[in-house]
Parts: sequence; structure tokens; C-alpha cells
Amino acid sequence: MKVLCVGEIMLRLQPKGYKKIVQAKEFDIFYGGAEANVSVSLSNFGLDAWFLSKVPNNPLGDSAVNSLKELGVNTSLVVRGGERLGIYYSEKGAAQRPSTVTYDRKYAAFSEMDFSEIDLDKALSNTTWLHFTGITPALSEKTEELTLKLLKAAKQKGITVSCDLNYRKKLWSQEKAKVVMTRLMQYVDLLISNEEDCKDVFGITADNSCIEDGKLSVSGYKKIAEEVSKEFGIKKIAFSLRESYSASTNGWAGIYYDNGVCYESKQYKVELVDRIGGGDSFGAGLIYGNLMNKSPQETLDFAVAASAIKQTIEGDYNLASVKDVESLMKGSGSGRVQR
Amino acid sequence: MKVLCVGEIMLRLQPKGYKKIVQAKEFDIFYGGAEANVSVSLSNFGLDAWFLSKVPNNPLGDSAVNSLKELGVNTSLVVRGGERLGIYYSEKGAAQRPSTVTYDRKYAAFSEMDFSEIDLDKALSNTTWLHFTGITPALSEKTEELTLKLLKAAKQKGITVSCDLNYRKKLWSQEKAKVVMTRLMQYVDLLISNEEDCKDVFGITADNSCIEDGKLSVSGYKKIAEEVSKEFGIKKIAFSLRESYSASTNGWAGIYYDNGVCYESKQYKVELVDRIGGGDSFGAGLIYGNLMNKSPQETLDFAVAASAIKQTIEGDYNLASVKDVESLMKGSGSGRVQR
Amino acid sequence: MKVLCVGEIMLRLQPKGYKKIVQAKEFDIFYGGAEANVSVSLSNFGLDAWFLSKVPNNPLGDSAVNSLKELGVNTSLVVRGGERLGIYYSEKGAAQRPSTVTYDRKYAAFSEMDFSEIDLDKALSNTTWLHFTGITPALSEKTEELTLKLLKAAKQKGITVSCDLNYRKKLWSQEKAKVVMTRLMQYVDLLISNEEDCKDVFGITADNSCIEDGKLSVSGYKKIAEEVSKEFGIKKIAFSLRESYSASTNGWAGIYYDNGVCYESKQYKVELVDRIGGGDSFGAGLIYGNLMNKSPQETLDFAVAASAIKQTIEGDYNLASVKDVESLMKGSGSGRVQR
Amino acid sequence: MKVLCVGEIMLRLQPKGYKKIVQAKEFDIFYGGAEANVSVSLSNFGLDAWFLSKVPNNPLGDSAVNSLKELGVNTSLVVRGGERLGIYYSEKGAAQRPSTVTYDRKYAAFSEMDFSEIDLDKALSNTTWLHFTGITPALSEKTEELTLKLLKAAKQKGITVSCDLNYRKKLWSQEKAKVVMTRLMQYVDLLISNEEDCKDVFGITADNSCIEDGKLSVSGYKKIAEEVSKEFGIKKIAFSLRESYSASTNGWAGIYYDNGVCYESKQYKVELVDRIGGGDSFGAGLIYGNLMNKSPQETLDFAVAASAIKQTIEGDYNLASVKDVESLMKGSGSGRVQR
Amino acid sequence: MKVLCVGEIMLRLQPKGYKKIVQAKEFDIFYGGAEANVSVSLSNFGLDAWFLSKVPNNPLGDSAVNSLKELGVNTSLVVRGGERLGIYYSEKGAAQRPSTVTYDRKYAAFSEMDFSEIDLDKALSNTTWLHFTGITPALSEKTEELTLKLLKAAKQKGITVSCDLNYRKKLWSQEKAKVVMTRLMQYVDLLISNEEDCKDVFGITADNSCIEDGKLSVSGYKKIAEEVSKEFGIKKIAFSLRESYSASTNGWAGIYYDNGVCYESKQYKVELVDRIGGGDSFGAGLIYGNLMNKSPQETLDFAVAASAIKQTIEGDYNLASVKDVESLMKGSGSGRVQR
Amino acid sequence: MKVLCVGEIMLRLQPKGYKKIVQAKEFDIFYGGAEANVSVSLSNFGLDAWFLSKVPNNPLGDSAVNSLKELGVNTSLVVRGGERLGIYYSEKGAAQRPSTVTYDRKYAAFSEMDFSEIDLDKALSNTTWLHFTGITPALSEKTEELTLKLLKAAKQKGITVSCDLNYRKKLWSQEKAKVVMTRLMQYVDLLISNEEDCKDVFGITADNSCIEDGKLSVSGYKKIAEEVSKEFGIKKIAFSLRESYSASTNGWAGIYYDNGVCYESKQYKVELVDRIGGGDSFGAGLIYGNLMNKSPQETLDFAVAASAIKQTIEGDYNLASVKDVESLMKGSGSGRVQR
Repeated sequence: MKVLCVGEIMLRLQPKGYKKIVQAKEFDIFYGGAEANVSVSLSNFGLDAWFLSKVPNNPLGDSAVNSLKELGVNTSLVVRGGERLGIYYSEKGAAQRPSTVTYDRKYAAFSEMDFSEIDLDKALSNTTWLHFTGITPALSEKTEELTLKLLKAAKQKGITVSCDLNYRKKLWSQEKAKVVMTRLMQYVDLLISNEEDCKDVFGITADNSCIEDGKLSVSGYKKIAEEVSKEFGIKKIAFSLRESYSASTNGWAGIYYDNGVCYESKQYKVELVDRIGGGDSFGAGLIYGNLMNKSPQETLDFAVAASAIKQTIEGDYNLASVKDVESLMKGSGSGRVQR
Repeated sequence: MKVLCVGEIMLRLQPKGYKKIVQAKEFDIFYGGAEANVSVSLSNFGLDAWFLSKVPNNPLGDSAVNSLKELGVNTSLVVRGGERLGIYYSEKGAAQRPSTVTYDRKYAAFSEMDFSEIDLDKALSNTTWLHFTGITPALSEKTEELTLKLLKAAKQKGITVSCDLNYRKKLWSQEKAKVVMTRLMQYVDLLISNEEDCKDVFGITADNSCIEDGKLSVSGYKKIAEEVSKEFGIKKIAFSLRESYSASTNGWAGIYYDNGVCYESKQYKVELVDRIGGGDSFGAGLIYGNLMNKSPQETLDFAVAASAIKQTIEGDYNLASVKDVESLMKGSGSGRVQR
Repeated sequence: MKVLCVGEIMLRLQPKGYKKIVQAKEFDIFYGGAEANVSVSLSNFGLDAWFLSKVPNNPLGDSAVNSLKELGVNTSLVVRGGERLGIYYSEKGAAQRPSTVTYDRKYAAFSEMDFSEIDLDKALSNTTWLHFTGITPALSEKTEELTLKLLKAAKQKGITVSCDLNYRKKLWSQEKAKVVMTRLMQYVDLLISNEEDCKDVFGITADNSCIEDGKLSVSGYKKIAEEVSKEFGIKKIAFSLRESYSASTNGWAGIYYDNGVCYESKQYKVELVDRIGGGDSFGAGLIYGNLMNKSPQETLDFAVAASAIKQTIEGDYNLASVKDVESLMKGSGSGRVQR
Repeated sequence: MKVLCVGEIMLRLQPKGYKKIVQAKEFDIFYGGAEANVSVSLSNFGLDAWFLSKVPNNPLGDSAVNSLKELGVNTSLVVRGGERLGIYYSEKGAAQRPSTVTYDRKYAAFSEMDFSEIDLDKALSNTTWLHFTGITPALSEKTEELTLKLLKAAKQKGITVSCDLNYRKKLWSQEKAKVVMTRLMQYVDLLISNEEDCKDVFGITADNSCIEDGKLSVSGYKKIAEEVSKEFGIKKIAFSLRESYSASTNGWAGIYYDNGVCYESKQYKVELVDRIGGGDSFGAGLIYGNLMNKSPQETLDFAVAASAIKQTIEGDYNLASVKDVESLMKGSGSGRVQR
Repeated sequence: MKVLCVGEIMLRLQPKGYKKIVQAKEFDIFYGGAEANVSVSLSNFGLDAWFLSKVPNNPLGDSAVNSLKELGVNTSLVVRGGERLGIYYSEKGAAQRPSTVTYDRKYAAFSEMDFSEIDLDKALSNTTWLHFTGITPALSEKTEELTLKLLKAAKQKGITVSCDLNYRKKLWSQEKAKVVMTRLMQYVDLLISNEEDCKDVFGITADNSCIEDGKLSVSGYKKIAEEVSKEFGIKKIAFSLRESYSASTNGWAGIYYDNGVCYESKQYKVELVDRIGGGDSFGAGLIYGNLMNKSPQETLDFAVAASAIKQTIEGDYNLASVKDVESLMKGSGSGRVQR
Repeated sequence: MKVLCVGEIMLRLQPKGYKKIVQAKEFDIFYGGAEANVSVSLSNFGLDAWFLSKVPNNPLGDSAVNSLKELGVNTSLVVRGGERLGIYYSEKGAAQRPSTVTYDRKYAAFSEMDFSEIDLDKALSNTTWLHFTGITPALSEKTEELTLKLLKAAKQKGITVSCDLNYRKKLWSQEKAKVVMTRLMQYVDLLISNEEDCKDVFGITADNSCIEDGKLSVSGYKKIAEEVSKEFGIKKIAFSLRESYSASTNGWAGIYYDNGVCYESKQYKVELVDRIGGGDSFGAGLIYGNLMNKSPQETLDFAVAASAIKQTIEGDYNLASVKDVESLMKGSGSGRVQR
């Protein structure tokens, strides 16, 4: 089953260990981006994952594409050209010191990609599922148009569409995001979000009666989901729930609303190795569960377990296999050595 | 006091930090093996530790031997020759992602070592103690025979013998292990194990009345020890108790059955640096306590403290000195800086 | 506002990660020292920080000075000459294994610095604050004299003086420390300490009625502060409170006695990256709060937050900015990613 | 144009820089093998390169396959299973100290691959060229049979076949090599060799009249080629000419016999970065030139330039593009910076 | 003596050793730029070097500034703001494989710096010398205007001006460069160039009678200098002469035309460590010689020796001291160990 | 055959690659010293090498001793105690930039070792050969006395004594060196030197008639040897001949005067990896040749080949085996890969 992910892939540069950028004499190199990360997860789950993007025709572009090919993602839809590969610099925090991300993604090749550079028939042929996130239309008017046209064509071909809201305040305002994302929601079958994104983008939130111990209750998430579902006609809505105890340790869980019913996962306490890409691997788990016709509860549990493992792996990409995820779901979380 | 340890030493290759093997562009190099690890611990405790094994006549064999010589182990009984040095690849896990070990130890020089390559008189001269683990006879029929002959000769010379059960399901079946290990038990004075090994090898376990909060109670361990003692005539039996909260943090304790009395240690909560070799350093602590004529409780406490420290040290070898261990036993565990 | 810090700067050598020195094939290089660390903190807080010291005229001396210049500290008062740069070797501990420090600082250039090498007028011109620690007079009779003369001159010019007791038993005896530090206390306006230092140097401690749950109570610290204040006429006394759960995780808080009133901070649970320099950054926070005319409670909270962040940063120097510290004071401690 | 390469791929472990294995605490990781290296070269030249082999179903096997996928080689013919991935350890020499290779490749999955595991129709469909080296039949009787059957099938389908003699004395005797390779030569269209291999395998060499200044003359190589051509009916025979001044600097050139005419290349003086894989990239250049219908002289020049560049690149794989090679052929060898 | 350098500073990212970008998992980090490099050289020669530029208000901007402060360059004229720090990626070549530079410097903060952001009086107060290169006006119309206004103001204040032509074809066309640089030449007292730059920018070159053995003769350089001098009224013109034997080894020399007389240096054969910044350190040597009133021959010899040393040092910055340079001029070039 | 080497062992710290100390954020760690290096060479040649010294009772002392034990040197005569381990910092030069050594060895444990700490009978029992260098008596009056007493005792027991002049101007003056070394020469059987040392220490040099092409001729060396032999009654005198083309490439040869006859070796051109320890490994080769009763020419050739290999190996220790050296002597110097 072919799944197509559309978006930007960036170079990620990070000082070693817990060093800050001003201390760094070397950067570790990773490549990643919200939709690229989903494509890798799906390829590692055994699906036929494709990535559509644009990267410059230089060694950085080569390296970004190679990082996907290495893990089995089909990159034949990645157009080569444009000025530069976007970059983000990350610093790994600890305890009271937060991790930080500094973006240098403006003028990136994908953000200036024109819809005319895509061969629609080739891109969507034999495609079962299309995935994008709110970052893609936020990058530029060109990518906004590109997203809209792709979604329309996908819908015509009966392709299922998933969207991770992924609101980025440095890319666009809440007002602009609301207008654009509202227009796109009509094509979306599965929406992935968290409490903040729904509020930031659509202004949809739960009232105070749903706050327990300072956290939104399950019924609160259900209310948000119901409102989103009602407004946009989306049947499946998932929320990842991160509880930040410190920059070193987080709680991680999920809630999944499927055709009016709300499912809740267990919460993992994760001693973080690299939390970047956690939400993307959650989305990939949901797509996998749906494509495999798992039950909603199994789908959610799979997505939460998969994304918990991701956060123990360095880099943006989730390297967990289906076997790894199922093993955690069956209780291997105590971490005994596998010999 | 000369202590002789007999077994395989391997090359251990591990990606840096929390990287997985598929991400690795470099491996950290360690050398280790159950009995080699014990010999290093004992050398660091100030004893005259010897290691008997066979490694190939190439730079890998040189390096394995050098790693022991560097830490004071006498390697003059290590025979050179054979085809290859066994390897194991380890990945360090975190949180919900377990650490993994991938073996490539087949056809290793030691596994094909013939008993005729050992000069018994030289090997056992002036020896007070002989140590081996269940891995040694499991490797091949040759090493099974070699173990048996060494134990017989040791017994005749009045040498005390210790054995760590160390059942490895990839090396032999439970049926085969039971037959062989049962034959060897008659020569053993101190048996080191955990709950699983006794069950896997001898089928000896405690009944449900000994399970409290999902864990085996002290009385449960005592029952197992009594049964083992009765069946094989072994007076001293020790169990290491690992409680795996996650791949990052474990509880660590021990129980020691000595001539009918059962002793219990405190439990350490260990933020793991490298848990491999934890059991071996527990065994070394028990041997040290016995050779130093410490009381059973002191022996156990020393062994548990020594092996807790091991798990904060990188590599298979425990580098803790007697002073380090005693300092922890006296309460330095809070980790204040030693200036 | 110019702040002058006087003391030794050393080369710090540390094995990578959790390696012990006997395992190390490479050392990470840092530069630091109690007073140098304070100067860097203050420079990062935007003050005009100067450092007065002496380092040898070789590449090690160059590197130590460069490490300060890089972060904006004015080093024009650092004299070049003498035999060697002092060194300290550190090992990072974990869990039950304590971090260790091995000193090789004898015969260092600063310890043999003669008072005549300082141009007092230049050194103290336009200076608002002078900072030193108990290490400086402990190094040698020369630095003892140098400290005394600097303090006298500072007092005459109306410069505020702060002192961190920093008792080091390898440098001098408690008897000697008491004599010398008592003589210096008359010039001190702000004293920074912890429970042990006050006891080790002045023999001042609280009685048992102030111990709760094995820890000194706030009222106990107040009693110590009152006694110190009474004996030496010092109006401001601050204590850092470290609770060592293990070598990996500590509690961190502070108490500040200001003109008869005692202020208490919240406690941070810190998953340690590098605890060395924690106390120095606490001192720097107190100096900053006083220079900025913050209230005593704000001053203390700032100092504790700043020094909590320090312990998540590698190396002796605190790289936190005022914005970083204030962000933590306002509740960012949960460690969410800053994008 | 699909080119199929058949052979073993190994894990290569090498100490950093000029360290010897006995000094190493870490290994750099590369993957490579004579035929795998050719497939990567061809993929980098823009051809549709396929690799047929067998690797174990563990993370080492995954990594070997990923290293090929990353660079665009089609690995869908790589069978998964068997016991282990072969390993070779390399030490980089300098000046008078030779580079060394220590093999640990016995019992590798590919060496035990059975012909029945190959789907001949799938493997050879749409294939223009088949490449193997003398290592493949040397590994075991199974791979000898596998090679023979593949060649026969290839011939029936009209596929062009190239063979690099690559005699390895640790794998088989000269007698055995002669018998087997002679049987295979009838299927070979392009033979790649050097002076030693032709002598070691076939006993074919030039007489003393062809030695000038201690080196074999062009006419000497021509005589060898004519004899090989006559004996086995091979029309195209290429020799790589390495002149070892030291382990740091080599001369590199080639001679190409094509249908009775002998072509000679210029010689490059190469300051070596990594000479391993030099011969393989020479072979890949010859295959490329033939497939592109270049003239014999152009084909040779391309192959020599490509393989000169390889020896300035770390790892077994040649990363040079056609553009890189042609740029060197046009005179960029002076090494001016390309901005 | 205050020297002001005006230009861009960039982040430089380079794979370790001889790795190519597509192989890299980590980048070494350097900071540099033509004029920044000159400022560091001059600071290391003991002059009061200032740098005027603009870098973004983020950790990359901090790091670029810190790299200059660390080495004593006064950065108080560096404006903070704008979008991004320019980047260049470099690959270190060897033998036949050229080093490469991939630029990603568009939209950098300095290229969008407005002249109004400079306080002319502050910037040029007490200034003896102003240095810029052809890169600065090439970046944008804003920096073209900024350069022009600075030069005019400098001339009015009697400040000596030096310019390194540094033609970059990726930044502007030869036509545009000719127009702009011609306009700027009237303010220039010392012009630094090589044969190509004079030809590319001004179309000035020597005729064939000046070519000996494929290289331009000294009289050829003299003719070019005379023509440049006549056309622009510049009295001092220097040429660096690089002879590229390979990417590993270069010849390095210089020619200096001073008031009608032509001086020639010896040629160094340099086994390259990092050739980037070689030309900049040549320029810095010329400025130093002029400011120190050295004779033209001494000035040239100093500049050539300084820049030869630079090419044995990693990174863009020349760390050589006057003592190092003079030692080489006196014959230390044989490389005996200095103890 | 037991050979005893007496001297200091130091910690050596060196920036990675070609980095300068002021650029370094990490140091590579080696241990070495003139006599320690000889002991390692001899152990690697299969002799029973012992080292006598004193190192502090801390992890640095442990590491220094471990580095010798690892390579088979008997360290049971190394006394533990004293203040510190001496250090030297080295920078690796290239081309025109010389390598540098910065010493920090004052107050080292061995330099303060008292003769009374040695048990003469134990130290010299069964000893065939004693080796020291001019550094040992130069360190302090204590080590001067210790050297003298050891030599006397050795002579009484008929032990052969070798001495490498190794003049270090930072340790003592030429006048002092002459007095002390002259006193010691009466006990020396084999003297190792170079042209400079004989001149610096004894003022013995050849006249101008022996200079050819700027280098001392063989007959010049012979004259020096004859004069030394006449003055001190030493029968065997060896000179190493280093020709420094640059910091990257050296010529290396030797001359050996044995009972009135002068032998000359071939010269190796060495692309240097690490030249430190070259002279020590030359000395070790001479000792080995003498102990093995090789002819003077063979002895010299062995020593020169061994020390050429050393300079291609990182660190102070020569890791070459007898087989490696003999292989080079037989012509393997062209650097072909050893498979």
C-alpha cells in the first residue's frame, strides 16, 4: 500500500551531548521534517512510503534524499533544484534547561516549489493514503496552493487524507492559519493534533469544567474532538498528550476519537533521548493502524507505543519496527536486555 | 591467593551513546566475557587473578589479552590459535527501548579449544579458587569436556569451585543444559544464579505462595536455595535480584544462602551507565568475600555494592577497588563529589 | 558596572561521558576556577566583569585567557608568567558512583603571584564590586597577602566585597583557614557558604533542635547566619543547599539572610549534566541581584535558578543569560522545547 | 541499463586515523565487498545497478543493505538469512608501514548461499551486464556452483559478463583457482586483472624481455593479454597498474587490450586516503565505458581517472560521479578549490 | 594602531578528515570570512584589530562574534540583527580530488546591512587602516553603498585603505564587478590580487611573452601591476602565487610591486592542512609590514611566510604570531620539533 | 633476558589532528618517556623488559603503569607515591609549521625519587642489560645520585649498560650536563647519540672537512665516535641521522661505530605520523641487536628500520614486532597491503 507524504525535509544540526551551540566545535548531522519523518516510520513498518518534496541540487540535497532512500522511502518524486536546503539547529536540554530549536528554513527549495513541478498522475497513481501537516501550507503561498491542489486531486481519486495540525507561530499567524487550514479540512479524513494546536489554529478549546489537576480531562478532549468533527466533518481525530516533568523526563500518552467514541491510552514515562519527531511518529502509528484495519484502541495503543520508542532514539526518524512496537505493547517496557 | 577463571573472552562492539546499530558509523570497542569479567574484578580487588582461554593469533586476540594484562590479570595461560575471536554487538537502550545483544560468537577459538591444550599442573598449581559459568560448557562439546576435566582435577587438589549458572538459550536447550550442569554441580561449592536460571536449567522454582507484589519473596528464594542445596549438596547459593523499572533505571539487590541461613541485602536504585557485567561483578564480590573470610552478610553486601558500582561504569569490566566498594557500603551512595 | 574577581584559573581535564580516567584515551578540555566562573556568569548577565590572575606564558595560559575573552570577560589584568597552569582532573559519576576531582594545582603561576605584580589603581579603578573565595588565600602565603591587601584597598575605595567560603581541605587545615578567613571577614559585605563550610572554617553550626528529617531546618540556617553576622558584622549571608540523592540527581535550593531576615527558595530537582561550578553560579546570581537592587527574595530566587541551570550545562562556566534565568523563575522548568 | 553484481558484502572495521588495532578504542564502520563496490560505482554513474547476495537477518545485515540502498543500488535480490555477516579489519598504513587487512569472513551468509535461493528469471530479467569477481566462486563450493549456473543462464540470455580475477590466497589455492576460473572463463567478455593475478591463477606471465626498469612494459602486458585472449577467447582484457612508492603514495595507471589493440593510460601519483576498492572502481569504469559505447582509449582513461579519485575517498565505495571523473580527465587534477 | 576590517563572517561546516558531505554524520565548525580572517591575523600580530559587520541575534551570531573576541578582535562594531548567518560547506580534497566549497550565504544579515546602521565617527575614530575585499560590495546593493561611503569617509580622515580583489563569480558578473570595483579603486592604497582576479575584474593581463613554462613570469606580473597602477593610481600592488601540484600539496609565493619596483619572494612547498584563508593571511601580512614600516622585501617575505603557515593550520583563521612568522623567515621551515 | 630501563614516564596530551593547543577542546592521551619507550619496544621484541620509576598514587599514575603492563612491561619496580605525574603537551606540525613540545614535568614523582626507595638486589637480579638516558640524571640531584648508584651496582654485577645522551636544554645547562655525564660515561658500554648531543654535552664535533652538502659525512661521524671512544673508553657508539625536509616528511638513517669500524644504514624517507619516540626506538633496536648477537650491520639496520616504523605509529611507544621490522628490512617498504 502506497502512502504519499508531502512536505519539507531539512538539515538538522545539533551540538554533541548536552553542549550548547556557543560551546560547539562540531555538529551532529540529522535530516528530518514532519512529513519526511512520517514517511520513514511507515517504511520501517513495512509500507510502501513515498516522499514528495524539492531539495537543491547540491550535496546537502543529495544527503537529505539519501537519508530517506537508506531507510526504504521512495524518493523518485523529490524534485531537484531551488536555492537551498532549510536548516534547523537544535540544542538538547536537561532538567530545568529546555531544549531549543533555531530555524533557518526561509528560502528553502521546497518553500518555493511550484505546483507545476508535480506530475499529479504519477504522484498519486496507486496511492492509498496522503499525509501532510500544517507546516506545508504555512511555508509560502506556493506551497499553500500546492497543498490545496494535491488534496483536491487526492479526494477525486478516493485517497484517504491525514493531516497533523503542527502549528508553527514563526511561519504564520493564527489568523492566517485558521483561514488556510479551514479551507483544507474538508479533504481531511484523519486529523492529528494536541490541545494547543486546535486552540491556536481553530480557536477550539474545552471549558474549565474539563480541567482536572491542571490537565485537560478525557472528556475535555472528547468535547474538542466533537466540535472539530462537527465543524469540519472529520470522523477521526487524535491527540498526543505530552506531560513535561522536565527536559529530561516526560509523560507520553494519546487520545483517539473515532466516529464518536473516545479511546484513551496508557501513559509512558519516557527518559528522553531525543523528543523531536515524537508527534510525527504518533501520526505514522495512526496511519499504520488504519491501513492495517486495527481496532481504534489498538491503533491508538500502537501509535502511542511507537512514538514512545521514537523518543528514545536519536534523530528525527523513528527506527522502530512493528515487532519493536508490539513488543512494547505486550509489556517489554521494563527494558530487560534482549539477547 | 591465585584464582583461576576459565571461559571465553569476546570483542564487544557498541554504537556510541544511544545510537542503534543501523545508525552507527563507529563502534566503541570493549573486550569481555563472563569469566574474564570476574578475573578483572578480582584483580582490581588485589587478588592474583588468572584467566585461561584461547584467542586467535591476530591483532584482535592481542587486544583481548592486552585488555586483561592492563588490569593486572595473569594471561600466561591464554593459548593462542584458532580461527576467530567471538564478537557481540550491543545497543544501549533507554526508557521503554530495551538494550540488545547480537551474538556472533560461533567458531570462536575458545569454543574449539581442546582439553589437551591445557597443562593441568601448571594451570592449577597454587590455586585456591576456580571459577566458571554455564556459558563455558554450553559453547561446544570440547569446552564441555574441558570444563568437566578441569573441575575434577580442581576437586582432587582441594580447590574451591564457583559457578554462575548464566543460562543462554541461544547456546543450548534447557534439556541439554540440565544434563550437563547437573553433572558439573557435584564439584561446585558456591553457586551464583537468579530466579530464572534455576528454573530454566534445573526446573527448580518456588510456588505461588512465595510471590508478593509480583515478586518472589525472600522465603521463596530460600526455598529454591534449599532445594538446590539438597539436590546437589551445594552449601552456598547466591541470587542477584534485578528489578527493571526501565532500560534506564533498575533496582539491584541480592540474596545469599549460606549453610542453611538466608541473608538479604539492601536494594540500590541504579541509573544505569552499562548494565552488562553486573552479574559477573556480583559473583566476583562473593568470591572475594569468601576468600577474605568475611561474614555471609558482609560478603553479600560487598557483592551487591560492587556490582551496583559496575553498572555505572562503561564496558564489561568492573573497575571498582575494594576501597570504592567499602565506601559505598558505608553510605557514600549519595554521590557527593570526592575531592 | 565593573565587577572584579580575583583567583586562580585552571585547566580541567575530564574523560568523555562516564569514562573513568584509567579508561580514557582522550580528555575533554575546560577551563575554570571558582572566581573565574563567577566572572563569566556576570559577563553573561551583561555586567562588566574583570578577572585578575596570573597564568604562564605558554599555550595553556593563552587558552585559559581566551576562554574568558570569548565570553566577554575583561582579562587585561591577567598577568602572564610563572611556571605552570594548575590542572584538575574530573571524573563524572553516576548513581552510586561519586564524581571525583584529582588536583594537580601546586606550583601554579597564580599561587606564586606577588602582590607587587598588581597595579592597584588600575585594578580597582571604577570598580563597584570585588569577589574572591576562600581558595585564593588558601593557595599560598603570597596569595594570602595579596588577598588581604586587595580587600583593604577595596574597602578604602568603598567597593562592595563578596566572599565564598569554599573550604578546601587539601589546601589548608581548618585551624589555618579559621585564622586567615577571620582576619578577612571584616572586609566582607556578602558571605556565601553552605552548612559544612561555616562549620569547617569557623566552627559555627546549629544545634540538634534544628535538624528535621536529617536535614538542617531553615531556622537552623538562620541561627548560623545570625551567629556569623554577629561575629563578623556581615549583613548578608547566603547558603546553597544541595541534597544529593545520587551522583545523577540532586535537589538544589538556597537560603538568604539579609539584614536579619531569612529568605528561602523553592527546591529544584536537577538531573545533573555537570555539577561543578554550581556554587559559583549561585554566588554570581547573588552579586547580580544585589547590583540590580532586586529584593532579597528575588535575589535569592534568581541565584538559585541561575545555578540550577548551570548544573545542566557542561563545563565550569554558567552560560545562562538573564533571560534564561528569568524564564525558569517564571515556570519554564518543565522543559518544553523552545522553538 | 540494468547491471547485476553478484558477491559478498562485508562489515569493515578500521581504527581511526593511523591507529593500529591494538591501540583502538573505536572502529570506523564501512560496508563493502568487491562486487558491491562495483554496484555502487555504477549507481553513482547513473546506471541501474543491482546487487545479488545474502546477509543475515540482524542489524548488521540491515546496515549492509542500507549502505547500498542509500546510494541507489537496487537490493531487492539480496536474500536475508544465514548465520553471520563477514567482517574484515583494516589498518591504515603510512610510509614504510603497510596497510593490513585481517579477515573474519568464514561462515558468512553469502558463502553458504544455495543456488536454489535465487529466482533466475527475476534476477536476470532485463539485464544488460553481469559482473562477478574471483572471490565469489572461491568462497565455497556452494558459491562456486551458484556462479557457474548464473553465468550459464546469463550467456543464454545474451548478457555481457565481466570478471575481475581478484585472486585471494587465503580463500583457495592456485591449483583450485586455476581449475575453477578456467571453467568460468568461457562465459566472460571482459576480464579485469593485474600482472600478479594472471600469473597466480592461470600461470600466464611475460618473459624477461618485457621488464624495463624493474617494471613490466606495455608490450609485456600485451603479450599476457594475447595469451589470455587466445586461451579463453576473451576479447577485452584490462590491467590496473599500481606502483607502490610507500603506503602513503602510489602511482596508478591502466592498460586495456581490446580486440587485439593495446591502450595505455597516463599515470596518476595518488596521495592515498583509502586505497581499498581502487581495483573495483577501475572495473566499474570499464563497464561504464563499454555500456556507454566509449572508445577503448576513453573507456580506459575513464576507468583509471575514476579509480584514482576513489583512492582519495574514505571507505570501499567510489562516490565519484561521471562529472567528477570527466573533470579529472580534462585536467582538474591540480586540486584547485571548486567554489 | 587600530585597523578596521569590514565584511561578512560566516559559519563554515566541514566533514571530518577527508569525508565527503554525503558521507558526513558530523561537521566540524569554524567561523570565517575574508575580512574577518584578516582581522584575526592582525590581532595575533599584536595590532588593535576591529571588525565591522552584522550577524543575527541568535546563538549562531553569538558564536561568530565569540570566535573573534576569543582571539582579541574588537567586535563592538558588530551590529546584531537580520535574518540569518551565511554558511559555507567545505570538503577537504586530496591528490586528484579537489577541495570544494558550497555556499549558502544568500539573505545573510550582513548582506542586508544598511549604511544607516553604522555610526561613522565611532567606527573610524582613531583608525589607521581600513581593509575590505571585493566580496563586500558584491554581496548586495546595500553593501556596495556601505563600502563606498566607508571608503569616502576613510579617505577624508586620511586612513590608509587596502583591498583584496577576491572575485567571486557566484556573487556577481565580471561586468558588474568591473564597474563597481573601478569606482572603489580611487580610495585604495594597497591592492591585493592574483593573476586571475585582475583579469576577471579589470580585464588586465599580461601578453604571451611573459609566460614561461606555462607560468606567468615576474616581468609579467610587473606589467600587470604597472597597468593597474597607471589606471587607478595605486602605488602598492601584491600578488599571491599559488601553484597547485595536487589538492594535497601546493607551491606558495608572492610578488609585491611597490612604487614602481617589483619584489619577489621564495616559494614554499606546502603540504596542505587547510588552504582556505591563505590569501587573507597574505593580505594581513602585507598590512602588518606596511604598518610596521618594514622594507617592501621584508613586507612581502613576512606576508608569504605568514600565509604559508596559515595553510598548515585548521580553520579560516591564521593563528601564527609574529615570532612564528619570523622564525620561518629565518629558516625554521625544516620542521624540527620545538621543545 | 631481563632488560631494566630507568627513568620518568609522563602523561602526554596532544590536540587531535593538526589542531593547535589554543584550538583544542579535547586532548588525545598518551603515556611515554625516553626510557619507558625503550622498555615497550623491547617487550614488543619479545624480551623481558622491566621499568623502574616512581609515579603518584592517583588515577594518572595508575594509567601510566597500565599503559606499560598492557604491552607486557614488568612494572613491579615502579614505586607509587610523590606529588604528581609529569606532563608534556605536544602539537603536531605540518609542512613549514614545526611540531612543538611544552613541558610541565617539574615536581614529578620520579624527579623526587630517593635512591633509598630502590631495592638494588631485587631491581638488578638476573639482569642482563641496563638502559638510561641523559634525561634521568638531569631531572634533579636525587635522580643524578640514583643513576650513579645504579650504574655502579650494575657494573659490579657485570650488567651491560646503554645510554642515550638525550640532551634537554630546559633541564640543565651544557656545563652541568658535561660534568655529570662525563662521570657516568665510565659505566657505559653502548652510547646512543646524534651530532648535536655530542657537541652540546661533550663539546665533541667534527671539523669542516667532514661537511658535505651541508651535512656531516660518514667519516665525520666516525671521527666523533673515535674521539668519544678514546675519551670514555666506550666501544659502541650509534648515531641517528634525521634530515628534516619539513614537519611532514623526514629522512631517517643511522651510523654505528663498533670497535673501531663504522657502519652506515640506508636512508628511509618517512611521511611522519608521529616522530616522537623515534630516537628511543632506535636505541631499543640497538639493544635488541646486541642481545641477539646480530652483526653490527644487522644491528644498525634493524634499529633504523624499527625506528622508521615507529614514526608511522601514533604515540610514544613503538608497536612494531621483530617480524614487522624484518619485513621492512627485506623490502616491504613499498607499502603494499598485507592481506
